[in-house]
Amino acid sequence: MTIYDISEKAGVSIATVSRVLNGSRKVSEKTRRKVLDIIDRYGYTPNAFARGLGLNTMKTIGIMCADSSDLYLAKGIYYVEEKLRENGYDSILCCTGYELEARAAAMNLLITKKVDGIIMVGSNFIYEKDSDNQYIANAAAQLPVMLLNGELNAANVYSVVSDDYTSMYDATLQMMQSGIKDIVYFYNSTSYSGMRKLAGYRAAMLTQTDSTEGLEQFYRGSHEDIHAMTRYLKDLQETGLQFHGIIAADDTLALAAVKYAREMNYRIPEDFSILGYNNSMLVNCCEPELTSIDNKLETLCQHLITILLGLLEGKEMPNRTVFPGEIIKRGTTR
Amino acid sequence: MTIYDISEKAGVSIATVSRVLNGSRKVSEKTRRKVLDIIDRYGYTPNAFARGLGLNTMKTIGIMCADSSDLYLAKGIYYVEEKLRENGYDSILCCTGYELEARAAAMNLLITKKVDGIIMVGSNFIYEKDSDNQYIANAAAQLPVMLLNGELNAANVYSVVSDDYTSMYDATLQMMQSGIKDIVYFYNSTSYSGMRKLAGYRAAMLTQTDSTEGLEQFYRGSHEDIHAMTRYLKDLQETGLQFHGIIAADDTLALAAVKYAREMNYRIPEDFSILGYNNSMLVNCCEPELTSIDNKLETLCQHLITILLGLLEGKEMPNRTVFPGEIIKRGTTR
Repeated sequence: MTIYDISEKAGVSIATVSRVLNGSRKVSEKTRRKVLDIIDRYGYTPNAFARGLGLNTMKTIGIMCADSSDLYLAKGIYYVEEKLRENGYDSILCCTGYELEARAAAMNLLITKKVDGIIMVGSNFIYEKDSDNQYIANAAAQLPVMLLNGELNAANVYSVVSDDYTSMYDATLQMMQSGIKDIVYFYNSTSYSGMRKLAGYRAAMLTQTDSTEGLEQFYRGSHEDIHAMTRYLKDLQETGLQFHGIIAADDTLALAAVKYAREMNYRIPEDFSILGYNNSMLVNCCEPELTSIDNKLETLCQHLITILLGLLEGKEMPNRTVFPGEIIKRGTTR
Repeated sequence: MTIYDISEKAGVSIATVSRVLNGSRKVSEKTRRKVLDIIDRYGYTPNAFARGLGLNTMKTIGIMCADSSDLYLAKGIYYVEEKLRENGYDSILCCTGYELEARAAAMNLLITKKVDGIIMVGSNFIYEKDSDNQYIANAAAQLPVMLLNGELNAANVYSVVSDDYTSMYDATLQMMQSGIKDIVYFYNSTSYSGMRKLAGYRAAMLTQTDSTEGLEQFYRGSHEDIHAMTRYLKDLQETGLQFHGIIAADDTLALAAVKYAREMNYRIPEDFSILGYNNSMLVNCCEPELTSIDNKLETLCQHLITILLGLLEGKEMPNRTVFPGEIIKRGTTR
């Protein structure tokens, strides 16, 4: 169904169809109804076809992220913007925070600004309750929605994710094979990606132990306050829990683990092993340097943009793309 | 001069003036000319007055930054977005990179999106050549432009800056008073703020030495590659230069200095002193923790938003606001 077909079936000009699609007020209510009825009946993806005709496109992509001061999200935004620019697209970004209401509002704002597609950076946009994800499905009825490291089953929603489950599974198994059985899992996010990582850790642990009870430790404080994270680990140790390894859900938590181990006068990695996640610039900040999982963020972003540009050209594209991560071995593991 | 006055003087309706201001095509060229002539003759700040009438505002602010993956800029964006949201404003952000052309394009994109004002985060937007700053002055003819930690003399451009010169002057003097005279200044930006910091260091040094020749070291590599920065310092030492202190223009460079000192087996701070800038989350990442200058970014952002909101309400606001920084003493200085 192209804009030509709609024009023919509705018995109006292409310009009129275009006006209806653009929400112009210069169209009578009767004509508007007629055009929208045809579109309802036969289905139509405005952006893809309008683009093909050079209509209704500003060559601008909307980007959403929860918090640009999060190292990982900031890097994601950076790659996505860079690759859009290389392809002649502008981008506008909304930082939404973590409240559903603000997110739905930001989504609407971007649609008002006539973006050609929306990229949601970070898996924290997907809620557990399906009804909370309706704002994404609604937007996807109007334009393609790309999820970077998140997944949602809905039409016109496309996911590009890192295989966090397998990365964490493999890393945990490796640490166990180096002789450490009492590994704490230290995390601070229950996002989609966060839960996948936790599941990977748990599955690996259960190959050799009966339970991970007490070892899964959820930290609720500020995602930047390394002192608070270190204190959390000291308090944990003082409850009498024995542990000689920490697998952290991100590099900041892992840095706090390094600080903790130093304060306890453990030798790293001889007495104590630590693994981080994201392979961010933080891995070089501590002594010894941090073993961390590289989740190939730049590759993910590159593919996400390729898929989005394909969609905008009206091509069929895969709605789920998964990349493996890689453990980058440094000084904090044996 | 209000929209009422213009309407009266031009002999057209307020709606027509509003259409001209909005660039609507429903106005004849003759009428458009007449309205614009009146505006030219008497001066007019479209946004402030249009806002007062509830016309022509989307309650949306445009934000520009060079690179959201820069820790300091990312934090600035975060605070600015948060405070706008608290005040009922949406925001859209463009990450522009460092090329003038892309910046001018981003500026135009934001104006097309009918934002009420523009916030430029980071002093790197101001070029040395005046003609390169014309894109900012041009934008300011249409809406208020706020510079976070940058300065430009132009109408309708407002600066909120940290007193980087004095902060660096005081910090350098303090390090000299602790007994270190051979202090390297390690920097990687020649932005407005970067040059102010350098000038502060230089002025303090010259109170007790004749020259800073050889001590001012400009690093050109990636702003994230701590290994490359550390190598740079080792190479410097191998040229035979003596130095027992490093003042760094940001915390990442300072972390590299800590790494360098550890590799040289210097005791910190007994044999070697290091000072960073920005008081970012990185200060807690190394051992000992980093003395750093807090340039009060959150305070700056808070005031910038207060000034912008005042302008949008048609109030007179100061066009230059300067806040002092503060040295936060930790383990890397005596």
